[in-house]
Amino acid sequence: MHLTFRDAVRKDLPRIVELLAADSLGAGRETTDLAPYEAAFALVDADPANELVVGVLDGRVVATMQLTFVPTVSRGGTLRMIVEAVRVDEALRGRGGGTQLMAEAHRRGRDRGARLAQLTSDKSRADAHRFYRRLGYAQSHEGFKLEL
Amino acid sequence: MHLTFRDAVRKDLPRIVELLAADSLGAGRETTDLAPYEAAFALVDADPANELVVGVLDGRVVATMQLTFVPTVSRGGTLRMIVEAVRVDEALRGRGGGTQLMAEAHRRGRDRGARLAQLTSDKSRADAHRFYRRLGYAQSHEGFKLEL
Repeated sequence: MHLTFRDAVRKDLPRIVELLAADSLGAGRETTDLAPYEAAFALVDADPANELVVGVLDGRVVATMQLTFVPTVSRGGTLRMIVEAVRVDEALRGRGGGTQLMAEAHRRGRDRGARLAQLTSDKSRADAHRFYRRLGYAQSHEGFKLEL
Repeated sequence: MHLTFRDAVRKDLPRIVELLAADSLGAGRETTDLAPYEAAFALVDADPANELVVGVLDGRVVATMQLTFVPTVSRGGTLRMIVEAVRVDEALRGRGGGTQLMAEAHRRGRDRGARLAQLTSDKSRADAHRFYRRLGYAQSHEGFKLEL
């Protein structure tokens, strides 16, 4: 199985939302009304610091992630890449799609001069944690969220 | 003790780097050469998605943090605010400066329409974790980092 990757376009949006919602945690957080997603997509799409990526197999979107490039003063002025909203079609789990998706993230990061990739994963996602550790990630931080 | 807050300007940079380095973890990550920080500051300063903030007491910078606003398609198209590189002068710990700094972060986040604040903190910083929980943050995620 070999995915190809490209920047998402507007017509990918329903499928991206489907992937975000097809998940035990995501199901409770996403809605069926596309309007708020379209407004958000327009912002992401217009922002050079953000890349919404899709992975395609046989013409179908089967994976997605968002990359955000953040210039920071800390760590000697490191450009960081934040990886968010990583999803792979459940039907394709365990076939290397996630590994290919993250390799694409790291390639894009290095191309832009990022020296650090960082991500958070819900504490209940033990499989995802093993996956990231296997890719070489250090599970070094606690992640906190607050609704504003 | 009452801090005032403003966006950082270029001449705050040496003091910001001092605050970043005055820390058991930061000490090994920061350098004394200001050049890379100046380049990074120029990027942060030019980017409307990023706010480098300083807290001032009696004319002296005693606290800093970086806020990054990230439009996302997930969670119904939520604008997220990421809080990074939070530091308060050690001499002022326990006097409410951190609480005032985070209140400023949340005020700025709400002003820009962010509905979620998120941050990560090194697993060794137990005091910081208690502080964030006390502010209402859910310690819900594992944080991963990979050098690229």
